Amino acid sequence: MRFTIVKSIKAQQKLSRQLIRSGKSIAVVPTMGFLHDGHLSLIKKGLSKADIVITTIFVNPTQFAPGEDLTRYPRDEKGDLEKIKQAGSQIVFIPRLTDMYPDDYETYVDVENLTLTLEGESRLQHFKGVTTIVAKLFNIVQPDFALFGMKDYQQAAVITKMIKDLNWPTKIIVCPTVREKDGLAMSSRNSYLTPVQRKQATALYQSLILARQMVKSDERRPSEIRKSMRRLIKNAAPDSDIGYIAFTDLKTLEAKKEITKNTIASVAVNIGPVRLIDNMRIF
Amino acid sequence: MRFTIVKSIKAQQKLSRQLIRSGKSIAVVPTMGFLHDGHLSLIKKGLSKADIVITTIFVNPTQFAPGEDLTRYPRDEKGDLEKIKQAGSQIVFIPRLTDMYPDDYETYVDVENLTLTLEGESRLQHFKGVTTIVAKLFNIVQPDFALFGMKDYQQAAVITKMIKDLNWPTKIIVCPTVREKDGLAMSSRNSYLTPVQRKQATALYQSLILARQMVKSDERRPSEIRKSMRRLIKNAAPDSDIGYIAFTDLKTLEAKKEITKNTIASVAVNIGPVRLIDNMRIF
Repeated sequence: MRFTIVKSIKAQQKLSRQLIRSGKSIAVVPTMGFLHDGHLSLIKKGLSKADIVITTIFVNPTQFAPGEDLTRYPRDEKGDLEKIKQAGSQIVFIPRLTDMYPDDYETYVDVENLTLTLEGESRLQHFKGVTTIVAKLFNIVQPDFALFGMKDYQQAAVITKMIKDLNWPTKIIVCPTVREKDGLAMSSRNSYLTPVQRKQATALYQSLILARQMVKSDERRPSEIRKSMRRLIKNAAPDSDIGYIAFTDLKTLEAKKEITKNTIASVAVNIGPVRLIDNMRIF
Repeated sequence: MRFTIVKSIKAQQKLSRQLIRSGKSIAVVPTMGFLHDGHLSLIKKGLSKADIVITTIFVNPTQFAPGEDLTRYPRDEKGDLEKIKQAGSQIVFIPRLTDMYPDDYETYVDVENLTLTLEGESRLQHFKGVTTIVAKLFNIVQPDFALFGMKDYQQAAVITKMIKDLNWPTKIIVCPTVREKDGLAMSSRNSYLTPVQRKQATALYQSLILARQMVKSDERRPSEIRKSMRRLIKNAAPDSDIGYIAFTDLKTLEAKKEITKNTIASVAVNIGPVRLIDNMRIF
């Protein structure tokens, strides 16, 4: 079909219903814009699964806490549209803020337990904003598939749980993190980094590689691995402030007392004013 | 189509998707079973709007508070199936409790403000349970239309708000309360009443008729109308305990300081151990 930009919620609902009635399957790639190769890999994966990929662009205010970077979040709608078209996604849904959250808005979706640890601990209400906007997008787009990146590993787990609990007929597909050549996980927020900070930011990736190596060398104690990761980050990134270094189960997100199979190591680090996260399966 | 009973969530999702793909429109009538003529009027209305009416039967535990009547809620699956078939609903969805709420269930939908007054004030968490189960049913059944009764007027308002805020492509239709000959609003809970209580229970309806008459006679003060309603209820139903008598706006549910257009009078009254509610548009 012809590349189509949709801004109205009703129009997108109608278009999706028409596509379903005509036998087409739909994949959705929800984004906050300022697209990088990570997003584009989701579109490509979506095209391998469904007839139509709908990319959404919406900087969702309910997932930002007061004082976070909502107002300065990077935007480039024109560049995004070009990239989305090139990648082969046929529809872009760009809803208006006042349509998505009118003044009398008051309904929220909350996954109560998986959201208490890791990102949820430092970013209160963040996941409630994420699950609410994803619920809205699911209802508008009516997708068979939804694609998310592994970089936001807890987000993927929370949305997986939300889909299962509330019974959307949508299959989630979590795609590998796409990295820069030096290992830094791609993120729209990397654009905030100064050249010096950008160099230091590779410390997150390096610390995860170190963790994986230690596990390969039969280290199983989270405390020891954490200590080595912390040392590496502090050395490689003097301007850093470590939020957390965690070892959790891939599915339940429960903290591991000993590194066993299906362990994800995840880190949150402030480099200067920029909060970065990354994770890696280490066993 | 042939009368079909579906018990599996996945089977219902698949069946609904097939119906949509084949061009059929779907209406859903969510019930907790023990059907009366009120429910059947919803099925009939649904059939006038959509090709297929899916009636759901599920006694939803999350909308009962501890100590409420969950365990003794009346059930009659065989009778219900016969009535549903007679009324012309083609599909009955009767999910299993452990499928709907497995042990690790943790996701809830909450309409935060409309739920604070009236029923929400005395039944904490009630509406969170209602909106959560309705969200689940919408995602499983994927209806074009959803039918609810006006007897649960606040419930209808809360679900209308939930649909609008979270963008389900579903149109809600609220149908008039169906009453017994003496005016008592039909309710599965009426089956709890002894013959003496059953007679006293008409006090709710009579008090609403009185309110409407007073407004017709140009009384506009809620306090005066409430006083007269209270007197009537106390006289007609000596075993009663009045929960609330409220005058609210039809849409916003805000309390009216003066009776103006679009006012709903609503009452909650315990008759013996049975909590009954009713309402009427009085202007």
